[in-house]
Amino acid sequence: MDERSIAVIGGTGDQGFGLALRWAAAGRHVIIGSRDAARAAAAAEEARALLGPGAHRIEGRANLEAARSAPLAVLAVPFTAQVGTLKSIAPALAAGTILVDLTVPLEASVGGSAARILGLWAGSAAEQAAAHVPQGVEVAAAFHNISAGALRRLEAPVECDVLVCANRVETRHAVRPWVEAIPGCRYVDAGALENARVVEAITALLIGINRRYKTHTAGLRITGLERPGPA
Amino acid sequence: MDERSIAVIGGTGDQGFGLALRWAAAGRHVIIGSRDAARAAAAAEEARALLGPGAHRIEGRANLEAARSAPLAVLAVPFTAQVGTLKSIAPALAAGTILVDLTVPLEASVGGSAARILGLWAGSAAEQAAAHVPQGVEVAAAFHNISAGALRRLEAPVECDVLVCANRVETRHAVRPWVEAIPGCRYVDAGALENARVVEAITALLIGINRRYKTHTAGLRITGLERPGPA
Repeated sequence: MDERSIAVIGGTGDQGFGLALRWAAAGRHVIIGSRDAARAAAAAEEARALLGPGAHRIEGRANLEAARSAPLAVLAVPFTAQVGTLKSIAPALAAGTILVDLTVPLEASVGGSAARILGLWAGSAAEQAAAHVPQGVEVAAAFHNISAGALRRLEAPVECDVLVCANRVETRHAVRPWVEAIPGCRYVDAGALENARVVEAITALLIGINRRYKTHTAGLRITGLERPGPA
Repeated sequence: MDERSIAVIGGTGDQGFGLALRWAAAGRHVIIGSRDAARAAAAAEEARALLGPGAHRIEGRANLEAARSAPLAVLAVPFTAQVGTLKSIAPALAAGTILVDLTVPLEASVGGSAARILGLWAGSAAEQAAAHVPQGVEVAAAFHNISAGALRRLEAPVECDVLVCANRVETRHAVRPWVEAIPGCRYVDAGALENARVVEAITALLIGINRRYKTHTAGLRITGLERPGPA
């Protein structure tokens, strides 16, 4: 297992594919996962075509295979598929794996608005994810607030901070290099996993702002952080 | 009633006083309200001393008097005092008044953490406020995310966007000049009042970030808004 590899479960969707593109563009080894191995392979092929000859370390596999291929697995599936996908990949998540959840429980997933989120009993999608991973797997929450459109525009930096939540600071730090591999993204330590309640909700707020401002690239920056980050 | 006046109910607290200072520094007529008229007068006196001879259009009154003195009344009291204060000033709020709520229901108000918020049955403190104003009074939510420390440092601009929520776009627009009167602040149309659920929660997130980054001036900017704003 390559320590510099990342698996993107649901990497054929807009957000997952955009992240996979950016990490592959940065020279990282990316495994795109999909329920269907053929769709995963096709997405990897599409990514290679977009990135050109320099970036060939991107491949596609079925979710289960993808999940066992890297020390970090990003979960980028629609909210309604989150728990089912986690149950299906759980056997492949080795102790020590970090699962980076970027699920946003948009009301749109049950037919409502994409500018609202559902209230979850667990508090947030990330905390819901934490209830469905095997022991020894740590859950982080990150990358919710980056627009898929901004990820896809490879010629421009992504003007967005990435708020990273996890219960252990070491887990948050493990996600940091993956934030910093994307041009324009800045890591912000957002504390414990429960804070994903706010970070997920910010995505719904940004979707509403996108609509009102007739754009699709709204993101956010935290201002006033004189220091590079907590030790 | 001067259309360019603003009343700051709870203007002796950190956030309210900081806003009053900034608006007075911009030459606006500011009425600081307090339960105790003498404390309000003392705060106005302190503001005049800080601002120097140029800014004398700041005065102090009891909350009820303050509330009837301006077409915009900012509610800047601690969460536990919000409903009580609203009940006490309700008789003074004329139809057409805009109440700008900046209450954040921090868990700290019941002995918990300032980096967490309470769940409110109304959805947000702003929606709770809307249930306690007389008919004909519109509620907006704004100014939650600006740190009191940044407001107080008059020599520096406030590096923070102000997310303004209200059910009518006209209400949001009425708040806009008050955002733009503060150097460094930018108005962002954050949609309906229910979105204050997210905006209030962002304050708790910023308080946690302040702690981890050992600062007290964390704020936020929305990126990717190419246009000046919705029509």
